Order: sequence, then structure tokens, then C-alpha cells
Amino acid sequence: MARTLYFVSGSPFAWRAMLALAFKGLDYTAVELHGSKGETKTPEHLARNPRGKVPVLVDGDVTVYESVAVLAYLERAYPETPLFGTTPKQAAHIWQRVMEVEGYLSAALAGAARPIFTQTFAGREDEINQHFADARAEIATVDGWLNGNDFMAGDSPSAIDAMLYPALAMIARIGPSLKVPGITPNIPDYEADFPALAAWMKRVEALPGFDDAYPPHWRSAA
Amino acid sequence: MARTLYFVSGSPFAWRAMLALAFKGLDYTAVELHGSKGETKTPEHLARNPRGKVPVLVDGDVTVYESVAVLAYLERAYPETPLFGTTPKQAAHIWQRVMEVEGYLSAALAGAARPIFTQTFAGREDEINQHFADARAEIATVDGWLNGNDFMAGDSPSAIDAMLYPALAMIARIGPSLKVPGITPNIPDYEADFPALAAWMKRVEALPGFDDAYPPHWRSAA
Repeated sequence: MARTLYFVSGSPFAWRAMLALAFKGLDYTAVELHGSKGETKTPEHLARNPRGKVPVLVDGDVTVYESVAVLAYLERAYPETPLFGTTPKQAAHIWQRVMEVEGYLSAALAGAARPIFTQTFAGREDEINQHFADARAEIATVDGWLNGNDFMAGDSPSAIDAMLYPALAMIARIGPSLKVPGITPNIPDYEADFPALAAWMKRVEALPGFDDAYPPHWRSAA
Repeated sequence: MARTLYFVSGSPFAWRAMLALAFKGLDYTAVELHGSKGETKTPEHLARNPRGKVPVLVDGDVTVYESVAVLAYLERAYPETPLFGTTPKQAAHIWQRVMEVEGYLSAALAGAARPIFTQTFAGREDEINQHFADARAEIATVDGWLNGNDFMAGDSPSAIDAMLYPALAMIARIGPSLKVPGITPNIPDYEADFPALAAWMKRVEALPGFDDAYPPHWRSAA
């Protein structure tokens, strides 16, 4: 069955879906869309997702957008190699963490990044700095989630890892290069400040399929 | 097995969980916390949810917070009367809609309501009006989701209905009474502007368990 994932390079939302596919060992064709060329707003893409965003997964006769919905769909369609645990209690814990990433860390990151990427930051420095401070506080929180385990929910990757890695990678990438007057992102040095989290990132990077999900324009710019 | 749902009256997030419990026909004890009295920040509540928020569901040996996680847990623990469909394709659709409510309508509503409730709206009128305009556009979108059905995903209530009703009810309640200089909420009159949506709200209100989930301080103020 043909399985296609539409993504924009560097989108943390699309990256979540690609990591989930990788963690489950599912083959897929990744089709890159370039937002700057309007490729997420073509009639073809709007037919897949009227909101004109990524990711969109087309899996046989199923088309699904919204990254968390893609993760939930994959779990339902392909329950082998579970990403949401094997018991209701584990599912509760993993879903709670997934929604915490969505509602706090990713929300703070989006709140900080959007005005910067859209060049609408003038006069909003305090608000942006608050988002960065919130993100930093969340990083300290998620560091505590590891609790000595290899991955966020135990010995093997879960949906939490798929949600979290792209957010942390994006913060690490945009932070140091950010030179906007009045904005102090105060990005942590994971190795120095959160060594357990840095080691977890290396474990995620070593997983099969990680390289295929890595943002292509980050690689070529490196 | 004892099942307890901690809520704050009028919290749309707690209301989602209570509606999901009602739709599944699950008994629960609702324990009301008063944010204004600090009851969401007591050591007892912070032990249930370190973020000091509601809802929190305690179900036997499972404690889970984040409203969407509560819905996902209930589906996993009590698959009878499914709220996320019976096939992977239906699950994809319902999850997509759930995350659209979370990421667009509820986000717009929170963005508008937070500065008003916390009295920090001065100087942010444009931003708040934009959130209200976004919410209004989302209401037109979700009106289209009904597509002639009784409920958002077909003949019976689903997780979409549990997500959507509290958001629409809250907008209808706060909008007309809002008298803040420079803020024009432009709240729809559901009956006049979206009659199909108004009829859907009445169907939700007639479901067993709806009354038990209704915000107590709304009732006493009515």
C-alpha cells in the first residue's frame, strides 16, 4: 500500500510524524513541499489539507493531517511496535506527556518563533522573551521525565520521543544564531546544562530511520 | 472502582472530560476546585497535577491530566461506546478534528479570554480582536463539519463533540456580556447565523449526563 508523507523541511510538526513512522519501522515516501514557493497552498495540497499545512499522511485510502492525529492514526492502524504503551495506564501517561509537549514546550517555541520568522517582532520583545523563558523552563521539566530511562517512556521510543526531539532540535538550532535586538533567547547548552537530555538526543539520533527524517536543508547548510 | 474527576466550574478543558465520561456512560464523582481560593495549587492537587490545572481524572490506580489525554485514556480503558470510531480511518478523522479544535478554535478562544480574565488587555486590543475573528472563522468551519449528521462524526457522539461543545458554549456565554473598550468580539448568534450548529448544541444538551457536566456557577447565575 502506498504511504506518502508530505513535509516542509524543518517543520517540527512534520518531523514528529516522520519519526513516528521510523520508530514503527514503516516505509514511506517523503514528499518535500516548499512553503516559500507556495507549494503548501496549491489546489492539490489544499485538497489534502484545507489548512494548507504539513504534515499530511496519505496511507492507502486514508488522508490525515495534524501531527498528533497522524501519530494516533498510526498507532491504531499499526499497533505492532506500540508508541502509546501496552496498557491503559501507560497510554494515559504517554498521552499526558504528548499533550504537555504540545501545549507547553511547542506552544512556547511557536510563540517565540512565529514573530521572528514573520519579521513582526518589533515592539513584542517582552512577549517573545517570555516565550523563550517558558521554553527554557519546560526543557528543565522534560529533562526530569527521563528519570534514568533510555527513552521518555522507558526502554524503547514512544510518541513522547517523537514529539520532543524536533522541538529540542529546533530550539538548539535557532537559538544561538538569533541576533534580534532586545531578544535574549537564553538557549541552554544541552551538553553542559542537561547532560541526560543530551545523551537521550544522541540515542534518538542513532535510531533506524532517523537520518531519513532529518530536515534536508539543515543537512545541506551544516 | 472509584473514579474521580477534579474540575473548575466553567473550565472548558474539564468540561470536555466530563462530557466524554457522560458519552461513555461511566459513573464518576465530580470534585469542584475553586481556583480563586487557591484550591488548584494545594499540595494535594499539585501531587495529582504538578501544573496545578484541571481536569485531573483519578481512576483506580491511574491519575491522568491534560484533557485530550483523559479522552485518549478513557477510550483505551473503556473501548465500549467508542468516541474515536471503530476503524483506523474513522480514528484518523476524529483525531484530526479533535486536534483542529485544540489548535485553532480553543487556541483562539484562550488567546482572547486570557488577557480579559487576567485584566491585562490594555494595549492588546488588536491582538484580542484578531483572536475573536479567528474564533468566528473557526465556528464557520466547524459548522461545515456537521455535514447533515446528528453529531460531528455521524449518528452518535464522539470525542469531537466533547471537545467542541464547551468551546462554543463558552464563546456564547462570555461574548455578549463583554464590555471592554476597543474589543469587538463579534460573537455569532448561533440560532440566526449557524442554525445547524444550534440544533446540534440542543442534541448534545439532551444527552444523558449532560446536566451533571454543566458548570455549576453558570446554572446558579442563570
